[in-house]
Amino acid sequence: MRIGLIGLGQMGTGIAANLLKAGHELTVYNRTRAKADALASQGAKVADHIADACRGDAVITMLSNDDAVESAVYGDGGVLASLPKGAIHISSSTISVALSKRLAEHHAGRGQRYVAAPVFGRPEAAAAAKLFIVAAGPPEAVKTAMPIFDAIGQRTFTVSEDAPAANIIKLSGNFLIASVIESLGEAMALVGKAGIDKHQYLELMTSTLFGAPVYKTYGTLIADEKFSPPGFAAPLGLKDVRLTLAAGDDLRVPLPLASLLRDRYLTLLANGGDNLDWSAIGGLPAKDAGSK
Amino acid sequence: MRIGLIGLGQMGTGIAANLLKAGHELTVYNRTRAKADALASQGAKVADHIADACRGDAVITMLSNDDAVESAVYGDGGVLASLPKGAIHISSSTISVALSKRLAEHHAGRGQRYVAAPVFGRPEAAAAAKLFIVAAGPPEAVKTAMPIFDAIGQRTFTVSEDAPAANIIKLSGNFLIASVIESLGEAMALVGKAGIDKHQYLELMTSTLFGAPVYKTYGTLIADEKFSPPGFAAPLGLKDVRLTLAAGDDLRVPLPLASLLRDRYLTLLANGGDNLDWSAIGGLPAKDAGSK
Amino acid sequence: MRIGLIGLGQMGTGIAANLLKAGHELTVYNRTRAKADALASQGAKVADHIADACRGDAVITMLSNDDAVESAVYGDGGVLASLPKGAIHISSSTISVALSKRLAEHHAGRGQRYVAAPVFGRPEAAAAAKLFIVAAGPPEAVKTAMPIFDAIGQRTFTVSEDAPAANIIKLSGNFLIASVIESLGEAMALVGKAGIDKHQYLELMTSTLFGAPVYKTYGTLIADEKFSPPGFAAPLGLKDVRLTLAAGDDLRVPLPLASLLRDRYLTLLANGGDNLDWSAIGGLPAKDAGSK
Amino acid sequence: MRIGLIGLGQMGTGIAANLLKAGHELTVYNRTRAKADALASQGAKVADHIADACRGDAVITMLSNDDAVESAVYGDGGVLASLPKGAIHISSSTISVALSKRLAEHHAGRGQRYVAAPVFGRPEAAAAAKLFIVAAGPPEAVKTAMPIFDAIGQRTFTVSEDAPAANIIKLSGNFLIASVIESLGEAMALVGKAGIDKHQYLELMTSTLFGAPVYKTYGTLIADEKFSPPGFAAPLGLKDVRLTLAAGDDLRVPLPLASLLRDRYLTLLANGGDNLDWSAIGGLPAKDAGSK
Repeated sequence: MRIGLIGLGQMGTGIAANLLKAGHELTVYNRTRAKADALASQGAKVADHIADACRGDAVITMLSNDDAVESAVYGDGGVLASLPKGAIHISSSTISVALSKRLAEHHAGRGQRYVAAPVFGRPEAAAAAKLFIVAAGPPEAVKTAMPIFDAIGQRTFTVSEDAPAANIIKLSGNFLIASVIESLGEAMALVGKAGIDKHQYLELMTSTLFGAPVYKTYGTLIADEKFSPPGFAAPLGLKDVRLTLAAGDDLRVPLPLASLLRDRYLTLLANGGDNLDWSAIGGLPAKDAGSK
Repeated sequence: MRIGLIGLGQMGTGIAANLLKAGHELTVYNRTRAKADALASQGAKVADHIADACRGDAVITMLSNDDAVESAVYGDGGVLASLPKGAIHISSSTISVALSKRLAEHHAGRGQRYVAAPVFGRPEAAAAAKLFIVAAGPPEAVKTAMPIFDAIGQRTFTVSEDAPAANIIKLSGNFLIASVIESLGEAMALVGKAGIDKHQYLELMTSTLFGAPVYKTYGTLIADEKFSPPGFAAPLGLKDVRLTLAAGDDLRVPLPLASLLRDRYLTLLANGGDNLDWSAIGGLPAKDAGSK
Repeated sequence: MRIGLIGLGQMGTGIAANLLKAGHELTVYNRTRAKADALASQGAKVADHIADACRGDAVITMLSNDDAVESAVYGDGGVLASLPKGAIHISSSTISVALSKRLAEHHAGRGQRYVAAPVFGRPEAAAAAKLFIVAAGPPEAVKTAMPIFDAIGQRTFTVSEDAPAANIIKLSGNFLIASVIESLGEAMALVGKAGIDKHQYLELMTSTLFGAPVYKTYGTLIADEKFSPPGFAAPLGLKDVRLTLAAGDDLRVPLPLASLLRDRYLTLLANGGDNLDWSAIGGLPAKDAGSK
Repeated sequence: MRIGLIGLGQMGTGIAANLLKAGHELTVYNRTRAKADALASQGAKVADHIADACRGDAVITMLSNDDAVESAVYGDGGVLASLPKGAIHISSSTISVALSKRLAEHHAGRGQRYVAAPVFGRPEAAAAAKLFIVAAGPPEAVKTAMPIFDAIGQRTFTVSEDAPAANIIKLSGNFLIASVIESLGEAMALVGKAGIDKHQYLELMTSTLFGAPVYKTYGTLIADEKFSPPGFAAPLGLKDVRLTLAAGDDLRVPLPLASLLRDRYLTLLANGGDNLDWSAIGGLPAKDAGSK
């Protein structure tokens, strides 16, 4: 397929490489051109303008937040203005449900197709084509996009014909992870202050009831108190909790645990946490307990 | 070994059977004698009085809460008065850290030994000798008790020489599970109200990020809204959250997520939840969202 | 002074009448013209278009939320396009800090003056010229507007040269009131379930420690369980808590009590509370306690 | 009347002086005798043993917590063993609802009378005979005790024939005050970080909507960040929130705001707040916001 990719952060770069490996014809665009050039040697065309990445069968956006996506889509020469009729905008960024809804409407109004396809997985998973893709949108469009998903992920879940459904699932997934971080942070603050070794505690928990990698990964960061460098930065954690709460607000679903997480992230960021991993909220309970 | 076992609820009954299978000489005591008689056919002696179960090398208490344990230990002819010097009281009930501390002191004062050995696992695991045992106490005593643990569990974690450490770990584990229930309850209230099928959502989450059985087990109960009959009853859930908070209170460790869980359990029980499974708090977010 | 007034809800209507009584030359505009006509008999000119209300020394906007203000200010022929250089936009609506900031910048860019002047007081206070006005903006502009404030309120507090400061104070005031409602709701759920008469309880509290009218007013509504008709509707309560949280978000100030209030309002609205008074969240604790 | 008074802290000392002024025959007891001796010059008899303070028509206990009251009442030669039939135990300490209930039962079992009569007011109010008394118990007993209440307070509220009702009202009152502290703390953290002067803000709020002294008193402490010396110490604040939650627990009334307060007090005490005023939790929101 002829594919464009806008956004070459850690996630986008891994995705691009895998699309090339799978034999797709890829044009990449990044605001900072240097990152795009690095992919040229692997066979990617480098676009000078967003519009140049929108001339194929599909264009993927993999950007950091709503503002970046709005800017790429709605600006002069943006995706909305440039994408041919029938071509697909695959929106893989973790964006708000509200923006996804607007994108779906606006693309439909232009005769373009829109698929929301956020992913689960850290940069290593993107590089290894091991992402999980949560796809939603018109069935024909999702079907057309499937070779793309196959090239970048280990499994694709088609969840709805309504694109924003994929976004709310992605957000809720990050909410579940942040909840794990909070619960581990509290549990370890408690047992730690009781004099129990946190690593031994974590080993016990993860080898019995909590075998999911997310417990091992984040529990170790908390036990080590090692929140830097960030794998996923705290401001992004706040952003996702905020978007989860916004989705709840629109649907009138109170989410008290998400509210607690929001307050944790604000506390973290108000006290110098901008460059820490989002799991650093897991260190706050011990701080409240006077253990640090 | 010559072992006594006090308390033949679902957990105690499974444990007794496995101790007999392993060839131990077992005397059982239960307030309601009928349950004890059922084990006689498997080779257990049935004690008429608590004291009669305290004449061997060790006596295990497996009771429902602090009151039951206090009554068994401190009553006339109770464990404290009856256990020979050097024999071990293995306390496997989920009790407060404070009571465990008192027991440790009082047994030591009598020249008896005390090991806290709460377990993780539902009644099925007890029946199958698949419990996880968290043991703490004087090393020699734990070592002496090891054949008992080997007979009833799949793995024993020796965590501390300080007995109450095992109790705080047990409580924190139940807190972690209740946190999973709350987070799943909120996530499913959100995606459910957005029109997404809860079972499909759960399948997606548990086959990607959240593979631990606890997510599958409790997520299914929440998606099915099937909270009866209880595997572990809601009042016991409240009890354990309360004991977790009490442990935090003693150590001055604020636990806001545990506070949220406490309020959930109170809401559940104030509205007719006494006979529901403790995962029924996972249905409250959807109720708050007006979805039921 | 020659004054325009945009927005003739319960608050705006009372304000208009008092401006006329004070001898000001008033032009009123309301989207639904009928409300404007009623004021004509008292001497007001009725504007057909927003622009016609913007030809004097000052124009007051008293509208229900950000959207209404944005529409009045930024639309074709709106306040921004119509107000003469040097004239003042007095923004009395309870709007977001962020919008107030934008308005300040945009008016300055046009050589217009901008004063944020939200008010405390219910419609009765507006009718009786008993409002409290919280004013912020360039000192000269606030000084010029003072005769207007004198005509409509009992006291004006000039709080800052930075207009949005007035908005954040207004929001925080509503947050404090909502906090009173929540605390009374919980306290009365507790004593009520203990069998104590809620009215007697309230009488005791308000005649000893809590003499402020806000306790009497809202406490009585809660004790009476009389939340309809609304004096200030629940959706507006949610809006103000949301704006308080948004202000906290921008400044990185975690506000856990505001988070709790937000969840209360969402619960209320998700369960049929749209037409109730905002004090109806004070009935939720008793509901959680199974008392209703 | 012939009255005994057990407990000569700041509150008890003021009460004793006013009982003497009113002409009552008073015997005082304090664990540390020095405080009792100081009252001898004003006409009080000094008891060497609790029993000696229990020989009159009534004995008042004014002690710091449940443990102190239990010790005074249930110890050898304690109130329960010493008080004549028909005499009244007036329990003015802020104790748990559960203990008050036990006291009511045990005194009844001995043919003694029991009145719960906790008070609202700081030490200055006790010294000035300006306390508010919340009395509950058998009507005849309350009536008999009325001259005592008249001597020490400005007003007595007789709330129930069921003694513990007075205790739950007292606890709920302290909960309401702590809620004011929390709400002011959050509001001031917000406006303070926005650059608004906290004292000016407080002046505005207390001269408009929040005229009750409790806002002025605690708001000033928060604005001044002056939490030492304590008027009412933080550990007592925690104790009262804990007892409020315990009352809610027994009645199955979830109290999320009280839960938040509990976590605040634990955070405060875990970080060196033992000797601060209980209003010091009002400084935590600004700390979370990184403003200190």
